[in-house]
Amino acid sequence: MAQQHPDPTDPTAGPVTGDALAGYLRAQATEFLRALRLHRETGGGASNGTAESVDAARALRRSARRISASLHTFRPLLDPDWSERIRPELAWVSGTLAMEHACAARLERLLAALHRLSGARAFPTQAAASGSAVPGNTNPSTHPTPTSERGNHTVGAAKAGALLERQLTLARTRAHSTALQALGSSRFHAVADNIAVLASEVPLTPAATATDLHPLSAAAEEQLTDAVAALPLVTAGHPYNAEALIHGLSPDPAPHPQDAPWHQVRLLLRLHRYAREVLYGDNAPTDVRLLAAGQALNRHRDASEAATGAAQAARTPRIAPATAYALGVLHADQRHEVEAARFAFQQAWQKQAVSAP
Amino acid sequence: MAQQHPDPTDPTAGPVTGDALAGYLRAQATEFLRALRLHRETGGGASNGTAESVDAARALRRSARRISASLHTFRPLLDPDWSERIRPELAWVSGTLAMEHACAARLERLLAALHRLSGARAFPTQAAASGSAVPGNTNPSTHPTPTSERGNHTVGAAKAGALLERQLTLARTRAHSTALQALGSSRFHAVADNIAVLASEVPLTPAATATDLHPLSAAAEEQLTDAVAALPLVTAGHPYNAEALIHGLSPDPAPHPQDAPWHQVRLLLRLHRYAREVLYGDNAPTDVRLLAAGQALNRHRDASEAATGAAQAARTPRIAPATAYALGVLHADQRHEVEAARFAFQQAWQKQAVSAP
Repeated sequence: MAQQHPDPTDPTAGPVTGDALAGYLRAQATEFLRALRLHRETGGGASNGTAESVDAARALRRSARRISASLHTFRPLLDPDWSERIRPELAWVSGTLAMEHACAARLERLLAALHRLSGARAFPTQAAASGSAVPGNTNPSTHPTPTSERGNHTVGAAKAGALLERQLTLARTRAHSTALQALGSSRFHAVADNIAVLASEVPLTPAATATDLHPLSAAAEEQLTDAVAALPLVTAGHPYNAEALIHGLSPDPAPHPQDAPWHQVRLLLRLHRYAREVLYGDNAPTDVRLLAAGQALNRHRDASEAATGAAQAARTPRIAPATAYALGVLHADQRHEVEAARFAFQQAWQKQAVSAP
Repeated sequence: MAQQHPDPTDPTAGPVTGDALAGYLRAQATEFLRALRLHRETGGGASNGTAESVDAARALRRSARRISASLHTFRPLLDPDWSERIRPELAWVSGTLAMEHACAARLERLLAALHRLSGARAFPTQAAASGSAVPGNTNPSTHPTPTSERGNHTVGAAKAGALLERQLTLARTRAHSTALQALGSSRFHAVADNIAVLASEVPLTPAATATDLHPLSAAAEEQLTDAVAALPLVTAGHPYNAEALIHGLSPDPAPHPQDAPWHQVRLLLRLHRYAREVLYGDNAPTDVRLLAAGQALNRHRDASEAATGAAQAARTPRIAPATAYALGVLHADQRHEVEAARFAFQQAWQKQAVSAP
């Protein structure tokens, strides 16, 4: 199998053909089945899942995504009927399994942000003292706030945290049930049967074993490059451009439409990364630039969804104004995280791809 | 008088002495009296002030600040009793006159931010459409929001704008009355009498006319440099450091204590600028670096006070949650403006001072 994955830095290396694709798909299918078995053995059916079953679910998603992506990128090499039938099913599996994790991660992110915004560090009030040595300190707003008003925003932060915890824990529990139902369904069993077949027999087209994978992989990379070129990178590279929050109070429903092209690039970057895995396997050199760009886009997606979560929580009927205020601060904070992630992506992307094949 | 202000780029230029200080103070005192006459003639007593009376009040503040700053920086050259008596009075005058302007500017800034956050531009909802061509789009939060919830945040923005307008217009009217009362008071008449004397006769010490101003001006610059060195400039130069909002929901009363050292630098920068005016008059070369740094610190101050205004408005009893949410977003937005201003200051300051004398 090592011979199917030539050193990508070796220009004399021969073409990589459908055999490599078949090997990759078989390996991912085996991994899928292993994770599925592990998930069943480690109490995947428990109400919240053990650490092992969470890992197993992650491994299931991981291989489902890779199989689905490879069917997409290298579709001319595969039986089209089979390929078109299985791809949406794999997307359903990974999507359904991802929801529980997404709820948990979103709650964790929002509670961490609330904690940060509540100022874990304590320090004395020094605002009034330090300007006094200089004449002309005409700041009209240095009047001390009455003590009775001081705790208002902290109370709001605590209440906002409790509200988010309640809502996202409920969403997570529901997502867990949905995932369990899905894994027990006849629809999922049909997917698992297909993957079991794939583990031994990949439905390649007759010409596949003689077809070079590079042009299809290059096409995936080109799609990525085109999508990146369409992003507003000049703006993103200008710190504090205030773009991400520009519709923070607009009537458009969440998520912000401006985020969509970035989410799209995140998916295309993943396709490109998986195509590299097919071509080079374990020999693929770590591309620090791709890694940093991908991390920035993950952060972008997480912050975007967390901001939406805060905005949605603020629409809960009959919440206290202090709670709503804290959720507004939290929403804006996460939208700035979105902007920060775009800046990080721009910085990562503009670096020359020195080690990439 | 031009001979008192040598070309600062000319190393053979002679020392600048107390005569230059006297000339500067006489000119500023004359300007103060001119602005005061103009203010009285242009209806400074009207309920909201004409454009001319607003200009006159600005000119009054401007000269009061310069006289006060010069008395501070060059205090060894002036009669100490007189100097110590008049300085707090000038700070009172410029402080009292500044409040009305500050309220108006704060309201303008907050309404502009609300307008921006409400998304003046309209566009179709495209979030769901653009990710669909790619497999594995597992975003669990792309469910469309029910139409009934869509307008909630916009309503909040409108209500928040109305609330801020009400509160800050009231504060402005009060500040206007306070300023009018101050200008009609015997305390102010005593200040004006002192300035009238200053316009013809500056109370220099006997040694002043033989004393070089450069060491005192250099001391003012050194104070500035020291204060800048104590700022967290490494953090500020790192975009999206999220420092400015770190106590956004903390129980500490506004304004944020972390802003104080920056406000202090703003005042020291102003002292340095006025000292340059005393030494070089109209010959002072425009120092682009100082200009940019000063503008960044003004923006820092304005955003800091606007953020405080939004937080204070959110403490109004019985406001709707949607209003409080919008004020939370607005507060966080202005705190990010604070962070952006610090970044701008860091960028301006790190540039070499090539043309400064």
